[in-house]
Amino acid sequence: MVVTLTTDFGLVDPFVGIMKGVIAGRAPGTTVIDVTHGIPPQDVRAGALVLRHAVPYFPQGSVHVAVVDPGVGTERRALCVETAIGWLVGPDNGVLSLAAPSAVVRRVVHLTDERFFLPRRSATFHGRDVFAPVAAALATGTAAADLGVEVRDMERIELPAPRVDERSVRGEVIYVDRFGNLVTNVEREIVDPVRERRPTVHVAGNAVGSIVGAYGALTRGEAGAVVNSWDLLEIAVRDGSARERLGVGVGAPVLIEVA
Amino acid sequence: MVVTLTTDFGLVDPFVGIMKGVIAGRAPGTTVIDVTHGIPPQDVRAGALVLRHAVPYFPQGSVHVAVVDPGVGTERRALCVETAIGWLVGPDNGVLSLAAPSAVVRRVVHLTDERFFLPRRSATFHGRDVFAPVAAALATGTAAADLGVEVRDMERIELPAPRVDERSVRGEVIYVDRFGNLVTNVEREIVDPVRERRPTVHVAGNAVGSIVGAYGALTRGEAGAVVNSWDLLEIAVRDGSARERLGVGVGAPVLIEVA
Amino acid sequence: MVVTLTTDFGLVDPFVGIMKGVIAGRAPGTTVIDVTHGIPPQDVRAGALVLRHAVPYFPQGSVHVAVVDPGVGTERRALCVETAIGWLVGPDNGVLSLAAPSAVVRRVVHLTDERFFLPRRSATFHGRDVFAPVAAALATGTAAADLGVEVRDMERIELPAPRVDERSVRGEVIYVDRFGNLVTNVEREIVDPVRERRPTVHVAGNAVGSIVGAYGALTRGEAGAVVNSWDLLEIAVRDGSARERLGVGVGAPVLIEVA
Repeated sequence: MVVTLTTDFGLVDPFVGIMKGVIAGRAPGTTVIDVTHGIPPQDVRAGALVLRHAVPYFPQGSVHVAVVDPGVGTERRALCVETAIGWLVGPDNGVLSLAAPSAVVRRVVHLTDERFFLPRRSATFHGRDVFAPVAAALATGTAAADLGVEVRDMERIELPAPRVDERSVRGEVIYVDRFGNLVTNVEREIVDPVRERRPTVHVAGNAVGSIVGAYGALTRGEAGAVVNSWDLLEIAVRDGSARERLGVGVGAPVLIEVA
Repeated sequence: MVVTLTTDFGLVDPFVGIMKGVIAGRAPGTTVIDVTHGIPPQDVRAGALVLRHAVPYFPQGSVHVAVVDPGVGTERRALCVETAIGWLVGPDNGVLSLAAPSAVVRRVVHLTDERFFLPRRSATFHGRDVFAPVAAALATGTAAADLGVEVRDMERIELPAPRVDERSVRGEVIYVDRFGNLVTNVEREIVDPVRERRPTVHVAGNAVGSIVGAYGALTRGEAGAVVNSWDLLEIAVRDGSARERLGVGVGAPVLIEVA
Repeated sequence: MVVTLTTDFGLVDPFVGIMKGVIAGRAPGTTVIDVTHGIPPQDVRAGALVLRHAVPYFPQGSVHVAVVDPGVGTERRALCVETAIGWLVGPDNGVLSLAAPSAVVRRVVHLTDERFFLPRRSATFHGRDVFAPVAAALATGTAAADLGVEVRDMERIELPAPRVDERSVRGEVIYVDRFGNLVTNVEREIVDPVRERRPTVHVAGNAVGSIVGAYGALTRGEAGAVVNSWDLLEIAVRDGSARERLGVGVGAPVLIEVA
């Protein structure tokens, strides 16, 4: 059984290791895989986006724990979402929602049964006290329905939708990766038909080049756009950083314009 | 069997991966869990503090390796400390001591038997050459007593103790986490009775608010103090960083004062 | 079976986790070990150097995946190199070459059989789409020869060789670790005979002290040189950072001079 972890805990503190200790004690032999712990602190949307694009590459039936949890210790609910491809566990603040479109959700359970938590629960670290032991319970065969009370709703966050017209597509940067690539909300289905018309891509008002097939089609230091591994258009600089070159980040407007 | 690793090696270099290679070769099937490799370089006290708060969450009988080792290659001893809850392996500079209070120590072994080390030992990387193979030996059933010579003493470091009087508690910041929360040396048992009297918390002379039950009880951007997952008082800024707000770090004085 | 990963992906994005998801699905039970994901972006030589010094510490028969791949999506070949000690998998840009000296190479296979790739291949992330599934195939017993077409050549990169004369050795800094130690291209075999003559070590024109047996032989804040765990001379500052002290990095000239 695979349990994945996606958090904003970073790797400098021992928080992630401690969660793994809890899982190792309660579900020995479980394979625990870090999706990432580098979600910017309290950035629920970034966590949701990363989870959405990671989950499809894990085995059917994995347990995916996501803890980006500024409301820890308050009345915000803890959830287990059972889907067609596995279980999602985390706070009910939207972080699970992009990986769980309504069509695949089978059951949403409010985690209320404290028998599955650590005996003593802190006010600041439910990753350790609630989510890790619940993941261990799922990994050892506990049914989601037994973990609490089934509910009908969950918090959902939405990504901004690009606006498409005859000669342009207007989107925005929704993620920036470690290479400085600017990932936009413009999906492959929108890019593909436009691309044949050789559009120019602009970010925050600056023309940054055309849409190419791969980073390698750019010359060293050249900027351009490419459909990336998440099937989203991203702006890149070959052997460089588009973020640094353009000085922009998440939220920057992107315009794809046919001449 | 679980082996945990706590070091100041960071994750940019291959040092941690190499230690895991040694363990995989000598103790196949061992579950190796990173507590953290983000201990500030050569900060023995931070390593000891992190280890103390991580160990209780791992299965009974785990092997905990801690390598914060500015004296590597000198005469400082290498130790295995057998305790009621598992084994601690690392240099004899205090890094193991906070996780091994005298009451739980069963045996301290000076690692002298070179048959358990790598055949060639470098002067700079005993994590690879000594501590990883010794951990693998323990994980595969070697008795601690067989690893070297039993000794009676080990280096111990002490955390500063808070000073408590009728109307105040004086402590200090002993750790800062990735969220910028300032963790103090003031334990829950000291906080709980004072808390009912609605004290004000000061850091480095600045009033930072009151003691609340959870981060979520603060408004966005508000500072306050909370008893954290280590049962220590910490100063936090909701959706922000207390370190940045207050411009202080480890060693900053903390005053809890009843009006 | 052990699969290792060495990349420039960092740990902030989910790329490494996604690769592990692919491996977990196709080769359940495989032990996946991170060598490092902190190779500087697109620094093929650093990746090759790290891989060379890590591979010998892993079990015989491991699969070592290295993805530092600025040419992803172009015509650069993907390779599996079968050697006396295991398999190396990655792009044909030299990143595999320092770990695969000609003497130990048994077979170089151009990865052309798309049945071993993910069904849909992106233009930007062959770590996920090509190298992870190929590693999973090797880990589950697929013969390297079955993965594609055997070829005779592979890209090789060379480290600069030090120049040695009667009274001096001239080398350079080839790697800097997280402690700020400056690792040079001067190997133990060159250092050992010179060392008895008590040479002075210079970096970028500044005398930095003598060659000592261990960091601990230096006083706090003192600079010196030591043969490190890679059998290379490195310049260190005790309890400090030689990089910061000297303000130099990779490429800085190093002179070892006998008076």
